[in-house]
Amino acid sequence: MDTRKRIIDTASRLFYQQGYNSTGINQIIEEADISKASLYQHFKSKEDLLLEYLQIVYVQTMLDLRNAAATGLAVEEKISAIFRHMSEYAGSKDFCGCNFLNMAGEIPKENQRVYELIQRQKNEVRELFTEILTDNKTGKEAKARAEKLADGIYLLFDGALMSCKVYNDAWPALVAQKTALSLL
Amino acid sequence: MDTRKRIIDTASRLFYQQGYNSTGINQIIEEADISKASLYQHFKSKEDLLLEYLQIVYVQTMLDLRNAAATGLAVEEKISAIFRHMSEYAGSKDFCGCNFLNMAGEIPKENQRVYELIQRQKNEVRELFTEILTDNKTGKEAKARAEKLADGIYLLFDGALMSCKVYNDAWPALVAQKTALSLL
Repeated sequence: MDTRKRIIDTASRLFYQQGYNSTGINQIIEEADISKASLYQHFKSKEDLLLEYLQIVYVQTMLDLRNAAATGLAVEEKISAIFRHMSEYAGSKDFCGCNFLNMAGEIPKENQRVYELIQRQKNEVRELFTEILTDNKTGKEAKARAEKLADGIYLLFDGALMSCKVYNDAWPALVAQKTALSLL
Repeated sequence: MDTRKRIIDTASRLFYQQGYNSTGINQIIEEADISKASLYQHFKSKEDLLLEYLQIVYVQTMLDLRNAAATGLAVEEKISAIFRHMSEYAGSKDFCGCNFLNMAGEIPKENQRVYELIQRQKNEVRELFTEILTDNKTGKEAKARAEKLADGIYLLFDGALMSCKVYNDAWPALVAQKTALSLL
C-alpha cells in the first residue's frame, strides 16, 4: 500500500473511532508506521488530513445512499430503503455515528473549511431527498412541495443518525423511516 | 464567587465553545484563576467536571423546554413553542449546538458514564413530547399513539439542533416546527 493511502486509512479509522481532537499526529505516524517527515510531505497539517478524510467519506456515503435509493421503484420504497440502509449501518458494531455530524459536534463553528465541507455533504443529502420526492414531476409547485418535504425528511435523517449513536441502537433509524413515510 | 462555581462556569464555557477534548485542564486552571490542587480538591478528574457540567445544563435545558411548552394551551401550540424556543436559541450568537449531542459527537460510545447522562436527557425530551401529545387523554391506545408520534418529533428536534449548528442558522428549527405540526 502506498504511503499516502496508509496515512489516510489510519487517520480515517482513528478520527472516526476516537474523534479528531483525541487523535494526535504522533499516533497516526506510529500506527501508519511512517516517519513524521513523510506525513508532512503528503499533508501540510492535521486539518488537511481531516479534509481529505471527509472528502473520501463524502463520496462513499453519497454512493451508498444513492445505491440504497436505487433498490426502490416508488417514492415510498426509495425513502424506505435509505432508512433501512441506515438501520443496518447503525446496527453494525463498527458504527460510531455520522462522520460529518461527529465533526460538527467536536469542531467549533468558526472553522469555515471544515463546515463548508459538512454543509456540502448535507446539501447533497437534501438534494437526493428532493430528487426522489420530485419523482419526475415537473412544474414549480411540484418542485417546491418536494423541497419542503425533503428538508423535513433530512432532519429526521440527521436526528436518527445522532440518536443511533446516543442509544447505540438502530431503533431511531426505524422510527425515522416510519415517520418519513407518514409525511408522504 | 466560590471556587467550585468558578471552576464549573469556566469549564462549561470552554467545553461548550471549543469542545471537551480541545480543553485542557491547564486552560481551565488558568482562566478560572485557581491552583491545580484546588481543582483536584473539587473534581477528581476532567471527566467528573464534564459530568457535573452536563448535569447542570440538563436541569436548565429541561426547565427551558418545559417553560416554553407552558406558553401554549393546545398540543399544537406547545409543540410549536418548543421549536420556536429552539429557533431563538439557535439564532443567538452564543449558540454552539446542543451540549449533549456535541458530547455524543466527540466522545466515543464506549464511555458509559457520559452516554448514560446523554441518554437520560434525551429520554426526558422524549417523555416531554409524550406528555404533551397524550394531552390528558387516558387509555393504552392514546398513550401508544402519543409515544410513537413523540419519538418522531424528538428525531426532528435532534436533527434540527445538529443542523442549526451545521448551517449556523435557525432555519432547521423552523422546518422542524412545520414538519412536526404536520404530523399531528
